[in-house]
Amino acid sequence: MNADFHPSQRAQWARGQPISRLMARALEDPELISLAAGFVDNQTLPVLPVRQAMEQLWTDPRAARAALQYGTTVGYPPLREIVRERSRQVDGPEHTVPLERVVITAGSNQLLHLVTESLVDPGDVVLCAAPTYFVYLGMLSGLGARAVGVASDAEGMIPEALEEQLKYLKSTDQLARVKAIYLVPYFDNPAGVTMPLERRAAVVELAKRWSHFTRIQVIADEAYRELRYQGQDVPGTQVCDVEGDTVVVAGTFSKSFSPGIRVGWGVLPPDLVAPVKDQKGNVDFGSPNFNQHLMAKVLEMGLFETHLESLRAGYQAKLASLLSAAAEHLSRLDGVTWLRPTGGLYVWVCLPPETATGPDGRLFSQAIREGVLYVPGEYCFPVESRETGQNTLRLSFGVQSCERIALGVEKLAQAMRGVMG
Amino acid sequence: MNADFHPSQRAQWARGQPISRLMARALEDPELISLAAGFVDNQTLPVLPVRQAMEQLWTDPRAARAALQYGTTVGYPPLREIVRERSRQVDGPEHTVPLERVVITAGSNQLLHLVTESLVDPGDVVLCAAPTYFVYLGMLSGLGARAVGVASDAEGMIPEALEEQLKYLKSTDQLARVKAIYLVPYFDNPAGVTMPLERRAAVVELAKRWSHFTRIQVIADEAYRELRYQGQDVPGTQVCDVEGDTVVVAGTFSKSFSPGIRVGWGVLPPDLVAPVKDQKGNVDFGSPNFNQHLMAKVLEMGLFETHLESLRAGYQAKLASLLSAAAEHLSRLDGVTWLRPTGGLYVWVCLPPETATGPDGRLFSQAIREGVLYVPGEYCFPVESRETGQNTLRLSFGVQSCERIALGVEKLAQAMRGVMG
Repeated sequence: MNADFHPSQRAQWARGQPISRLMARALEDPELISLAAGFVDNQTLPVLPVRQAMEQLWTDPRAARAALQYGTTVGYPPLREIVRERSRQVDGPEHTVPLERVVITAGSNQLLHLVTESLVDPGDVVLCAAPTYFVYLGMLSGLGARAVGVASDAEGMIPEALEEQLKYLKSTDQLARVKAIYLVPYFDNPAGVTMPLERRAAVVELAKRWSHFTRIQVIADEAYRELRYQGQDVPGTQVCDVEGDTVVVAGTFSKSFSPGIRVGWGVLPPDLVAPVKDQKGNVDFGSPNFNQHLMAKVLEMGLFETHLESLRAGYQAKLASLLSAAAEHLSRLDGVTWLRPTGGLYVWVCLPPETATGPDGRLFSQAIREGVLYVPGEYCFPVESRETGQNTLRLSFGVQSCERIALGVEKLAQAMRGVMG
Repeated sequence: MNADFHPSQRAQWARGQPISRLMARALEDPELISLAAGFVDNQTLPVLPVRQAMEQLWTDPRAARAALQYGTTVGYPPLREIVRERSRQVDGPEHTVPLERVVITAGSNQLLHLVTESLVDPGDVVLCAAPTYFVYLGMLSGLGARAVGVASDAEGMIPEALEEQLKYLKSTDQLARVKAIYLVPYFDNPAGVTMPLERRAAVVELAKRWSHFTRIQVIADEAYRELRYQGQDVPGTQVCDVEGDTVVVAGTFSKSFSPGIRVGWGVLPPDLVAPVKDQKGNVDFGSPNFNQHLMAKVLEMGLFETHLESLRAGYQAKLASLLSAAAEHLSRLDGVTWLRPTGGLYVWVCLPPETATGPDGRLFSQAIREGVLYVPGEYCFPVESRETGQNTLRLSFGVQSCERIALGVEKLAQAMRGVMG
């Protein structure tokens, strides 16, 4: 007798994110201009800084050996110290957190996973802006959690809509299941919007005020904070949390330096430190020590800041190229609008309500025929959401050259014309 | 109103592994000779090979950029190909697996986590040798799974004891909950024992035969396979699985090259490929690409094999030092016995039944006073186990020099004498 394979409940929940199939499709056709993948610019990857840091690190055999040995679960202390110091510099010394609250992870993505794993049981609710980062939505369904949408505008999640949702959940006896509010407060993936300080403060205040049954954490995914191309930085979400018990910050050097090195971090409320450490201990014992030592050296040598400046200049030009192509080609199409971000890697496009952007719709196929790929906006909407974004799409400008971005937008406009008649 | 923090059920299960506290204690006192930590030898870490591979990789800016970019969730194809080729070389071409069945992970530890996560629901059973790798036991309790012990001897898990356990579970209507059998078939952590091919075959056959309700997977954690210091290699556990649907192999370059680079792999039965990929997608999107490109270069350049030879020579001397100190100091103590492994990083010691080795016992404190730290054997026994190993302990010889190993064993013998009277 040899019975069939039976995956766990978790494995069933995590089954096949549709977006992976989309990406696989993009990779099959090298001619296709992908404005879909949220990858970073290949040409600006820090080849020279990494070599310099490696050479410096390797001048001291003891330091080299330390980098090749096991580290600790929460991460290399000097790197955690640098993360803390950088946060102090941007948000002010009054918001400095104790070192124990800083943890190093495999990108910010892993931090999101560890924190959410530590907070939610199956059936629990995480409130998310609609639209929001689709990978996080996939993670929530993989945990058997419910993603409930909160209306969002050009300044991100709307506090009044959040309160309305909390009231509704309370009135239906579901408030005890609400464990977190997820924000991407800087240059949101997918919409490119940034939350002003007042909005962040309002969301944090609501989280605290509605913590009737269990503390509702605010998870601030600040992965794009460093990628600002104009205007002033907005203070980090944690400055709105005077008690320090509500806001979780996720950060990363993946977007601002190198995704292949994949070093991210979290700043945690004290109660979450032990659970996140325990989860990380079970998952991987700690992120690769080599990468952490290397990244610390890059930062100590000042190579990060220099690289970031050139990176910003490059992305600024790409964003300009996308926006100018949009002004030229999309503005001629009735009912097509788009947001104009000042940072990040994404531009969000809205089509007339009747024009479906989904993978089974006419526009998506037509765009591929024209030679361009986008992310259908519907992937970015929580399962439980009033809006479904069926007429929206996300364009990424990180990967392609300025010329190909402009060409991609032109092709997209062509596809839209064909479909919208 | 601001309610308390409530961790998830998972977070509660994962709470504080006692072993972490033990290790923290060891790190506080640099004078202490730790024969506890399973770390690798600091002096033999591959400083030069890593530099050579980096320099080679960095001669081609395109290759360097590829290493710094995102990779794929299942891992860098050339590295997966090398893993497959190495397995073909040691186990023969007739056991070659398709490339799709090879996945790269953050050490073998992450592979164990992803696979177990894909197989077990809370309350499910994994059968483990008693004693076995305590980190895996911690992982199981973190998943809310039950670790059920199977008696083990100097050749690892005893097939007759396994069958007896399966019969018992069937008779008590628990067989449907048995999802996996966990083995460390080469130089077992903690006992240092290696399973002969016949035993592996018997265990795999039992797994297949007892798969009445759901397929019972055999998870073969082959992390120490490369660390053999004498005798012939034993064929990999997967050769016993002709259908290829039962055995999961976990491997790693952490022990054989560098834990700081932290590249491991899995060879999966076809049904587990998608679930493991989905889990990994949720956890970290794929292991750091940089480390995978670097490790592939190390292997392509033949630097791994050369390094491994010198590593083996180093560990062989350390093992010899431990065994000779044991012969000198422990053999004088009545009822103290130990196993003599031919590889790995551990030596397993049994004391008279009445001598407790646990962290609250007299021997443990006395050993620390003498200046030596060991891992109490009881940590290595599954919760549901007939034996509890209260009179056993694990010594690691990876980290310390030959001199300090000998001194540590002498101190341990001194502590034993004090306690055993």
